[in-house]
Amino acid sequence: MNRRLQKLSEWMKENEVHVSLLSSPENVFYLSGFNCEPHERVLALAVFRDEEPFLVCPAMEIEDAKRSGWSGEIIGYSDIDRPWEMIKNAIGARGLAVGKAAVEKEHMNVERFEILSQLFPEVNFISAEEKMRVLRMIKDEKELSKIRKACELADFAIETGVQEIKEGKTELEIVAAVEYALKIKGVTEMSFATTVLTGANAASPHGTPGMAKVQKGDFVLFDLGVVVDGYCSDITRTVAFGEISEKQREIYETVLRAQLAAVAASKPGATAAEIDLTARTIIAEAGYGQFFPHRLGHGLGISVHEYPSLTETNPLLLEQGMVFTIEPGIYVPGVAGVRIEDNLVITADGAEILTTFPKELQIVK
Amino acid sequence: MNRRLQKLSEWMKENEVHVSLLSSPENVFYLSGFNCEPHERVLALAVFRDEEPFLVCPAMEIEDAKRSGWSGEIIGYSDIDRPWEMIKNAIGARGLAVGKAAVEKEHMNVERFEILSQLFPEVNFISAEEKMRVLRMIKDEKELSKIRKACELADFAIETGVQEIKEGKTELEIVAAVEYALKIKGVTEMSFATTVLTGANAASPHGTPGMAKVQKGDFVLFDLGVVVDGYCSDITRTVAFGEISEKQREIYETVLRAQLAAVAASKPGATAAEIDLTARTIIAEAGYGQFFPHRLGHGLGISVHEYPSLTETNPLLLEQGMVFTIEPGIYVPGVAGVRIEDNLVITADGAEILTTFPKELQIVK
Repeated sequence: MNRRLQKLSEWMKENEVHVSLLSSPENVFYLSGFNCEPHERVLALAVFRDEEPFLVCPAMEIEDAKRSGWSGEIIGYSDIDRPWEMIKNAIGARGLAVGKAAVEKEHMNVERFEILSQLFPEVNFISAEEKMRVLRMIKDEKELSKIRKACELADFAIETGVQEIKEGKTELEIVAAVEYALKIKGVTEMSFATTVLTGANAASPHGTPGMAKVQKGDFVLFDLGVVVDGYCSDITRTVAFGEISEKQREIYETVLRAQLAAVAASKPGATAAEIDLTARTIIAEAGYGQFFPHRLGHGLGISVHEYPSLTETNPLLLEQGMVFTIEPGIYVPGVAGVRIEDNLVITADGAEILTTFPKELQIVK
Repeated sequence: MNRRLQKLSEWMKENEVHVSLLSSPENVFYLSGFNCEPHERVLALAVFRDEEPFLVCPAMEIEDAKRSGWSGEIIGYSDIDRPWEMIKNAIGARGLAVGKAAVEKEHMNVERFEILSQLFPEVNFISAEEKMRVLRMIKDEKELSKIRKACELADFAIETGVQEIKEGKTELEIVAAVEYALKIKGVTEMSFATTVLTGANAASPHGTPGMAKVQKGDFVLFDLGVVVDGYCSDITRTVAFGEISEKQREIYETVLRAQLAAVAASKPGATAAEIDLTARTIIAEAGYGQFFPHRLGHGLGISVHEYPSLTETNPLLLEQGMVFTIEPGIYVPGVAGVRIEDNLVITADGAEILTTFPKELQIVK
């Protein structure tokens, strides 16, 4: 059993859970090293307190699972097999009486849960997700090296995007150029749909890129991320195209001050709420409080949104190895939308910034 | 109530269902016209037998819902509201006693179902999904016009991709060029990850594009689709790069004969199984039966995979308005992988092919 599985087993002992059935590709990847998107088919990892775990996957994925480094038992099934019954039999073969089981209640659908409940009518099912979120929150060196690479590519993407800004280009043309450049470098997956917004669109915190054209005097906002070996980055930069107004500049400088202050406050022992409030207070005192409608940031790793959540009420203490975004924004309809987002990892005595594209106001001529 | 909602209500009357709670973005879009991706937030459409339906969405999406044409009641909620309780209250306000409810058991997760079951402890929950699949299977003219546009763009994408084939280019470079050209035209979403495979990769029915380079004497396989106004296309073409062997040519011509025969057999009154077997028999008689390991095709529309499923055992009778793919393939490891896929709509007396890029063997010099 690897260290991650051991930690889950310890939790199971403390909580008298006999078996955990992980079913989301993200958690199966985290615990087994096998990164598989089974689409509508079943993927599961059964973890016990003392016995060895086993993996359940479509038969055609078995070779991939072995190549990924999983050396434990694998149960492969065909399209005419019944994978949940095979899981029941494999648990029975271990001679285990199951009274309490942990499943992913946010990932598992009702149809599968009904099958499982019929196969294990006496079992009390609890949720494994909160524990998995906490386990995944602290990254090890192997994970950090993947996130670092993903952040390097995110920096490159911003650089590419900024160079593409020219009068009359559409948001989608710039998205196209950025993703083209990444694919040439071998990137096969983005963390989420690449966002380039300009002018009025950038002033909406959930706009989507379209046929709007960049124009002198506008901000251009980039929000994008790259997946490397299953790990995500997530960066935002906002640049000016030509001369901007005093008001726009004031908004930019306010966001930047808030971002830098939050980054500086990030260290072991600070709470998530403190970091959020550090930025939020600066924005509020500058008179823009109502135009910063979202949390300061979120953890990231295998998922682009995971723990910790940086909200103004989260008492969580930051710890070495946590990776998260710091992304304050100000969106004033009709005036400007600015967001600046870095990815950070908490170190022994502070934080290391993983995204390095300059944050001082860049003016594209 | 629109016609789609009426049909669902009729089914509810026949099956004594008091309320249907649709929760997948696809089914809510189909019934309401509102195309919304709420991410982790709740989206729901409550449909009754006689009373007017209501839509539940995040408050910030209300304006979008109205703009999309939904003129019925909308219940918006904030992040501190409890949307399921609001749904219960809105049903209660209609003075309805609910004994039986239909939900999407494949889409709804266990966590939400537990909340719902606690709010409605006496209710018998059945699945709405099979009925929704059957309803969505027959497309109306409005839907067809969107699918036609999506198919035109898919044809354009193949044309672009074929022009990009040059000695030494990687699969990912060709993917990048295709998606670049589409974004310039305003395309914001693909039906699935664009696939360009060459040589050995094309001989695997579930390969993914990477840094492999196209080389003279190889096939290049394109599989891609475009989303237009919420509707998908899905096309596959395989072209030769330079001179290919007699064996490769034989494989290509076998797939083409199978594909043309299946298209010709597609008409109202034929069964899905007959169409699959028309192609499968031709491939088997040519000696390649074991190298055609998947079904002949699948329906498509709001989802890229929906009903009907064209398998060798599906007795379903084809009807006017059904839209599906016909995509036989032969994958001989170490020799060649060829698949040819069109999108069709069943007409009054036959079928209309919606994807028009040539299917006769194209040789790129």
